[in-house]
Amino acid sequence: MRLRSSTKPVVLVLGSGWGAHSLIKVIDTDMYDVVVVSPRNHFVFTPMLPSTAVGTVEFRSLLEPIRTSNPCVTYLEAQCETLDPEGEGGGGEGLLVQSTHLLQLSKPWQMQIQYDKAVVAVGEQPATFGVPGVKEHCFFMKEVTDAVALRKKIAEKFELACLPGTSEQQRRAALNFVVVGGGPTGVEFAGTLSDFLREDLRKKYPALMPYVRVTLLQSVSSILTQFDERLQRNALSNLTSSGVEVRTNVRVVGVNKDKVLLKGGEELDYGVCVWSAGNAPRPLVTQIASEASRLSPGSKLCVDSFLRVVGASDLLALGDCSLVLGNRLPATAQVAGQQGAYLAHLLNSGYNLGVGGYTQPPPFQVVPRCTLQVRRTKAQRMCLYVP
Amino acid sequence: MRLRSSTKPVVLVLGSGWGAHSLIKVIDTDMYDVVVVSPRNHFVFTPMLPSTAVGTVEFRSLLEPIRTSNPCVTYLEAQCETLDPEGEGGGGEGLLVQSTHLLQLSKPWQMQIQYDKAVVAVGEQPATFGVPGVKEHCFFMKEVTDAVALRKKIAEKFELACLPGTSEQQRRAALNFVVVGGGPTGVEFAGTLSDFLREDLRKKYPALMPYVRVTLLQSVSSILTQFDERLQRNALSNLTSSGVEVRTNVRVVGVNKDKVLLKGGEELDYGVCVWSAGNAPRPLVTQIASEASRLSPGSKLCVDSFLRVVGASDLLALGDCSLVLGNRLPATAQVAGQQGAYLAHLLNSGYNLGVGGYTQPPPFQVVPRCTLQVRRTKAQRMCLYVP
Repeated sequence: MRLRSSTKPVVLVLGSGWGAHSLIKVIDTDMYDVVVVSPRNHFVFTPMLPSTAVGTVEFRSLLEPIRTSNPCVTYLEAQCETLDPEGEGGGGEGLLVQSTHLLQLSKPWQMQIQYDKAVVAVGEQPATFGVPGVKEHCFFMKEVTDAVALRKKIAEKFELACLPGTSEQQRRAALNFVVVGGGPTGVEFAGTLSDFLREDLRKKYPALMPYVRVTLLQSVSSILTQFDERLQRNALSNLTSSGVEVRTNVRVVGVNKDKVLLKGGEELDYGVCVWSAGNAPRPLVTQIASEASRLSPGSKLCVDSFLRVVGASDLLALGDCSLVLGNRLPATAQVAGQQGAYLAHLLNSGYNLGVGGYTQPPPFQVVPRCTLQVRRTKAQRMCLYVP
Repeated sequence: MRLRSSTKPVVLVLGSGWGAHSLIKVIDTDMYDVVVVSPRNHFVFTPMLPSTAVGTVEFRSLLEPIRTSNPCVTYLEAQCETLDPEGEGGGGEGLLVQSTHLLQLSKPWQMQIQYDKAVVAVGEQPATFGVPGVKEHCFFMKEVTDAVALRKKIAEKFELACLPGTSEQQRRAALNFVVVGGGPTGVEFAGTLSDFLREDLRKKYPALMPYVRVTLLQSVSSILTQFDERLQRNALSNLTSSGVEVRTNVRVVGVNKDKVLLKGGEELDYGVCVWSAGNAPRPLVTQIASEASRLSPGSKLCVDSFLRVVGASDLLALGDCSLVLGNRLPATAQVAGQQGAYLAHLLNSGYNLGVGGYTQPPPFQVVPRCTLQVRRTKAQRMCLYVP
């Protein structure tokens, strides 16, 4: 179905992370009907999630509702299950523009939404590498709900350790905080957690301090492998001096209710286990990627320098779920945010971002911008963000 | 077991609500070893819970950790299952004072704690009156977690109503907010909710406003029955003018996933149902009450004017779970808070609050207060609260 009875082309944005947020802040809603589809109705300032988990920053300070980011977009709380770029699913009701496609949504019920351009900015999900027990027993550091649940769990473990019926061994186990993964997220979280435990909680639970341990497990021989050696050494010495026990060349093969199982048979008692061992593609991305390039389906959407998905039409992608061909960019918030604004400027300038795969600029399409500018509402002017 | 190797008498406080909080703020921890046992490690400023549920007040502003209220008390996150005032369960380890009793705790494991005086200040729990489906589908307004979950649910229902696949009828049902119970809590919540929906959410969801309804169901012919008629009329007209539909003489006989079932066969579609139809005694209170007065077990602990439980020894009770004989006080936060401070002053003055049931003052026991005052730590002086 079409959501509004206007003749403007529909730009469908999937996601509400760094890329999508930046895009909808900049895109001109006088030129396009922007529909944002995401199971999360707010943007999260992810770099501060570890601070939220330990209570330094209140979690509401990290959020911006999508409706506040740009009141002129239509937001739908839903998860995209299938993208049908060929529009084979049949035309929806209220067909008003020619170039239409179909998008099937689920949660809480199925619906189909027509679009003219779709922007995939769904990011990635935590990778468990098939290790059993991770989903059931570990915490991730991805959403605000994760951080809040983790904070609650930390408090619970300290209360448990306080009880007179708790044995020495149980106390030691309850206060062993294990972080799996020596990437930027894991390292930052381990440091933040250690500071919090030894500086803030010391005041409330002084008697428990000898039992507190933070253990960082890394599967290869060094942490922060994507950075240079000097940085790795500095990070390691900083972590160690703030009380984190860093164990390298340790592979986790399983997690159960109260033990982390390591390769070689070692078992590690733990109270809280945080899993930040990397990211994996979301099912939607795998599906689109395999359809777009039938020969070599990858885990990311290959895009050209105009962020058009190679092998698909009217489909754009940005952020962690995309890979710019010939210009490999790191999967960071900075890149996603800049790509979002860049794409919005391309769209605002009237570029017809149809079929991807070219290296030359896409055909330019003249749009009477001056007329449109006049019609822009006050609300939208206020929310415009020019980077 | 005894928690500390001191010779001070142990005052065991069950609960962390208004009564307990006020007691531990005032009690002299140089005279007594104070042990607080409660499943909730913080005090909640309950009158502001409705405001938290609608986001006006941040929930962390409503809390005070028990350890912050008085750093000199020992707090245990546990729930008292059985109180054995006769100490028949056998002496625990480390018995240091003569008059000892046993308390059995569960969660996460059983333990026994000796005490010299026990103060029951556990309050009450929401009453469901055996109506099926209430526990599963309704929200209560008792803890911060209730308010947070409710806030999330309200947002969820609005997002659901926004989806293009939602029918008119589903939208109307999702945005019908039903409050069961016309007491002070229900009335305040219904008013707060209605203001929030029609003033704050109007900005974000203007198109949904015609669908929003707040319905207050009351089983008798008027609301706020404990107040006089003029107040009842005023409250009713205020509620009505703020958009709440008040239905009196309506009895709820069941709640299922999406319908409130009324006596007479009527069914009410709802999105969120808040149950505030009154309170019932906690199992521990029923158990103690039946043991203390074997002839007429009541739902509250009968206490004399010194808050000693009639029929028991070394057992005190205050707040909603108690009933002062000959001086019926309302079950409000104000009464509980004042009783807590009053009891602390009695204990600080050295009254030996042994066996209850007398109307004359309990025997006075001289305690060298001046000496004790000197030993009081700086931390405790700071947290003292004299009403």
